Amino acid sequence: MAEFDLIDLIRARCAIERADVRLGIGDDAAILAPPAGHDLVVSTDTLVEGVHFPASTGARDLGWKALAVNLSDLAAMGATPAWALLALTLPVADRAFVADFADGFAELAAQHRVALVGGDTTSGPLSVTVVVHGFVPPERALRRDGARIGDQVFVTGAIGDAAGGLACLERRHPHLFEVPAEAREALIARLERPTPRVAAGSALRDSATACIDVSDGLLADLGHIAARSGVGIELDAWKLPTSSALLSAFEENERLVLQAGGGDDYELAFTAPLERATTIERDLARLGCGATRIGTVVGGSGVRLLDAKGGEIRLSRRGWNHFA
Amino acid sequence: MAEFDLIDLIRARCAIERADVRLGIGDDAAILAPPAGHDLVVSTDTLVEGVHFPASTGARDLGWKALAVNLSDLAAMGATPAWALLALTLPVADRAFVADFADGFAELAAQHRVALVGGDTTSGPLSVTVVVHGFVPPERALRRDGARIGDQVFVTGAIGDAAGGLACLERRHPHLFEVPAEAREALIARLERPTPRVAAGSALRDSATACIDVSDGLLADLGHIAARSGVGIELDAWKLPTSSALLSAFEENERLVLQAGGGDDYELAFTAPLERATTIERDLARLGCGATRIGTVVGGSGVRLLDAKGGEIRLSRRGWNHFA
Repeated sequence: MAEFDLIDLIRARCAIERADVRLGIGDDAAILAPPAGHDLVVSTDTLVEGVHFPASTGARDLGWKALAVNLSDLAAMGATPAWALLALTLPVADRAFVADFADGFAELAAQHRVALVGGDTTSGPLSVTVVVHGFVPPERALRRDGARIGDQVFVTGAIGDAAGGLACLERRHPHLFEVPAEAREALIARLERPTPRVAAGSALRDSATACIDVSDGLLADLGHIAARSGVGIELDAWKLPTSSALLSAFEENERLVLQAGGGDDYELAFTAPLERATTIERDLARLGCGATRIGTVVGGSGVRLLDAKGGEIRLSRRGWNHFA
Repeated sequence: MAEFDLIDLIRARCAIERADVRLGIGDDAAILAPPAGHDLVVSTDTLVEGVHFPASTGARDLGWKALAVNLSDLAAMGATPAWALLALTLPVADRAFVADFADGFAELAAQHRVALVGGDTTSGPLSVTVVVHGFVPPERALRRDGARIGDQVFVTGAIGDAAGGLACLERRHPHLFEVPAEAREALIARLERPTPRVAAGSALRDSATACIDVSDGLLADLGHIAARSGVGIELDAWKLPTSSALLSAFEENERLVLQAGGGDDYELAFTAPLERATTIERDLARLGCGATRIGTVVGGSGVRLLDAKGGEIRLSRRGWNHFA
């Protein structure tokens, strides 16, 4: 099978009509018509086998996740997704793998009306790079550098599930053999099929002062907001939103490590003034993911995790560093 | 060394100010302001070690080439480059390698005023994916599907050099040990430091009916124009433009295989009406690369290589298929 057949196979599965796509897959480049009077938001993320996903990951889940982690970056900017490119490197031209991959990618793309407009397929060790483009009204994108002292810190959904799912896959603790199948599957699904919080990000454009998606771990990612905004952040450990699946599978101490240090949840962590809290909680509850207040922006620098008595909790692992 | 240090190192070397970059590297995504009333042209290409470049390639050349092959796609559309993203996967966080890579990338980026606005660095087998964005007046991009029967076929510069350079590197023929060092170095430089024909592509917006860059091989790439345009192409083998370095290093028969089948030259192959030929040849000579008439668009399908008597020449290797 040739490269060109693979591209046709992907294109057939990812056909979404958009008036702003003048020319899609099949030429040297795509020709696109950005909407007048909007900023263009662009991001790219790579997933490498054995680094970002285990070799056991199904092709369909991988296709979904490769797009999801990128849409999550657009969500964190408050942008509305529009176009994607896909650079897929795979060891052999496996038609079934590519078809399944494209199906997973297309399933999520269709939910957000994202058109796949170009890409590249090459042979080599399995890795996926996706590029996404979205729009946002001028000067309205959410950034990392706007947090102010006194702002509240929020996170959407529940966190720690993806790290819990990975622990289940790796059977990292002996007791994980005894986790109920339903909880196990729910956690692994959160790892393999994350939900980018696109609607939440758009809704936060009016309220949030800074925003990031939780990909490397809550402490690490909020650390970026703190650094870029020139502030400190204090988190109340007992407020971190926890799914029932995570509750049923892990002890409190294990949970905290997963929630504060584990990555891959793709929830949004953001800051906003206290007076916006009620509106935010109501709006995001309506969108189905909810938002939980977990801390406060303070003077100084860095992120501190506090227990109920205000003492600092130190964890052994602060998120994920790709070259650690 | 952490991922974030590598990003800083790359950013410091690729700092180009552009007013249309609202927010560059350092957030979840870049925020860009496309110019009003233009189409946006977007392309991506991946280079994998051992597939697209030998392990012996220097980091600086690799940085140049990763951008060059992408700018070449914009050139083939007649677009003016503006922004790039870089997804770099490398086995170890080698500071010297990344610095050299970024220097090579930045050297070419500066020539075209391309701003590096985002990317991703991950650990894994060495591979580089670059995404480039350019602008073109509405409906004016060069495509593959506009060739018409009677059009002339042209190619910029000289072809076969990159394939000749690769043959020299691999010492594929015994006599290559005797090739003069100057010719050897010239051919290898064309392989490792290709020149994207950006100015030529822009100049051709008024004249060419179809255009592609020669990355997979002249016959293979012109085959895409033929297929998308619904025409055939006849090439006169003896007209293919040949550098003095290639002439001095290879016999006629070897040369033809390199010129017709070898890839990686990143010249532009294009079609245009006969009455535009003089203007095109003059304009492209002024731009330094020149253009040579090498054939004709005919009815039917496919690309045929003809000798001086009009007989068809069949080559054993028709360009490069990544999964062949």
